[in-house]
Amino acid sequence: MGGLYGSLLAKAGFDVHFLVKTDYDHLCTSKLKIETPLGDFQFQAQVYDDVKKMPQVDCVFVSWKTTANAALAETLPHFQESRPTVLVLQNGLNVEEEAAQYVDRAQILGGCCFLCCNRIGPGYIKHLDYGRIAIGAFDPQLAGQITHRMTEVGEALAAAGIEIQLATNLAEIRWKKLAWNIPYNGLSVVLNSDTKAIMDNPHSAMLAEEIMEEVSQSAAACGVQIPGDHVQKMLADTRAMVPYASSMLLDYQARRRMELEAIFGNPIRAAHSAGYQPKRIEMLYRQLSFLDDHQQTAATHLSNL
Amino acid sequence: MGGLYGSLLAKAGFDVHFLVKTDYDHLCTSKLKIETPLGDFQFQAQVYDDVKKMPQVDCVFVSWKTTANAALAETLPHFQESRPTVLVLQNGLNVEEEAAQYVDRAQILGGCCFLCCNRIGPGYIKHLDYGRIAIGAFDPQLAGQITHRMTEVGEALAAAGIEIQLATNLAEIRWKKLAWNIPYNGLSVVLNSDTKAIMDNPHSAMLAEEIMEEVSQSAAACGVQIPGDHVQKMLADTRAMVPYASSMLLDYQARRRMELEAIFGNPIRAAHSAGYQPKRIEMLYRQLSFLDDHQQTAATHLSNL
Repeated sequence: MGGLYGSLLAKAGFDVHFLVKTDYDHLCTSKLKIETPLGDFQFQAQVYDDVKKMPQVDCVFVSWKTTANAALAETLPHFQESRPTVLVLQNGLNVEEEAAQYVDRAQILGGCCFLCCNRIGPGYIKHLDYGRIAIGAFDPQLAGQITHRMTEVGEALAAAGIEIQLATNLAEIRWKKLAWNIPYNGLSVVLNSDTKAIMDNPHSAMLAEEIMEEVSQSAAACGVQIPGDHVQKMLADTRAMVPYASSMLLDYQARRRMELEAIFGNPIRAAHSAGYQPKRIEMLYRQLSFLDDHQQTAATHLSNL
Repeated sequence: MGGLYGSLLAKAGFDVHFLVKTDYDHLCTSKLKIETPLGDFQFQAQVYDDVKKMPQVDCVFVSWKTTANAALAETLPHFQESRPTVLVLQNGLNVEEEAAQYVDRAQILGGCCFLCCNRIGPGYIKHLDYGRIAIGAFDPQLAGQITHRMTEVGEALAAAGIEIQLATNLAEIRWKKLAWNIPYNGLSVVLNSDTKAIMDNPHSAMLAEEIMEEVSQSAAACGVQIPGDHVQKMLADTRAMVPYASSMLLDYQARRRMELEAIFGNPIRAAHSAGYQPKRIEMLYRQLSFLDDHQQTAATHLSNL
């Protein structure tokens, strides 16, 4: 995801520097290849394996998974001189809180990405569809505003051909995305199924709807209204979608840790603080936590199923 | 289970006739072998592959799984002449209702079995531990009574060395057993785990307790009190048990249909009728129903996990 957005910005003429983990060696000698409906291209990317070698920048995109957030501690302080905008492009709720330990809240933006995009090989990214980013300010004192930092980042991304939504309420875009992520990411793992299998069976389709309603009620308890027709539209859209394996299912199948705190733990805690108990979401969280622990500590056990 | 109890009765001198499915050919030529803490033995059993060849009897034990209950329609009417006691030794709630379509309610007893027993080969049964049967009258008009039929069957089983509890409230023994069966059968399948794995992980152990509490509240709504210390004792006993794969997990792993209506559907409907919504039990039921449907219709899909 970071590779796609960064590449589109580089293609549009921006000076983009990539902090890279897996593909560093490959990208030192080979071009970064992008397949996208916006027009395929490739280019020599400026890559780094160590944040200390990177220059100061105007904007930092945080686009690794939340399970890698321990690396924020050595990454964000490096850029303190230029006081960059920090755009947190991660799933979940309150995921910006960890960045706020290292930079001022006023610097932080949160973003929800709506795109289908995969790394299909070393330095090789395939962008399948969509691409919109919804951006909002993290600092509660800036709620209701389209800030200068939002406009600046939004204009750059728009210049790179990316559809941008500047939102005055970050919590609202976060909860609306969670209304999809919580039922479908969670159920896809517990039921080992793609979205089509979930929606084609009446039992699991009903359960997906009940869980989505609980997300809606959790959001409402936290002061965010998700309209009923938004819920119905998401269900209908998912029913009409091609079979889709959620990112959490892909993580689980690849035996990576799942983003359970960002997508489940934080929303549950927010609902509890607001006086609402989302029993089904809690149950899904406990089941996923068991599966996650179990896979990490006894990787062979699940192969029995 | 039927093989064990029938054999103990035969050994005690009762005239026992077995309606047999899988092992019929084997048992025509070979003895039925029983390994049990009560003393190993073997004998030539009287077996039948067709109920129409069977004699009239004083008592019919229904000990197949509820998923095989369609066979009641051809089995029970055969015995109408002798008006036998029909002892339904199955898990779940209101499982006697199906027998009541073919015989008078006054003939029907329900029984909960507490035993560890496996068929380990053709005509070869291994009884590991326990064996108690709790028996109660099904007809609500007989609630509160130890009936003549109960005493008669109880005395025969006791004479065969089986521990017997005659209960004046069938619903109470059913719900108390469900308090174990619902969380542990259900979670063992969804989490593909034995009881030890469930109790060793804090997330799943908490979920098992929450679900058991919901069974307790469902029972209470239906007029049956399960004392809090009974719940705590079951949790502690399960924590102390050797790793145990529930019967539902064994069914699922063997790609047999699971007893979802008896153990989940009927209790949920009873709770609803009494005005209580057990959300976690419903969610487990929906997940299990998905897995059951999916396994039956697309048997290869789950091998991907």
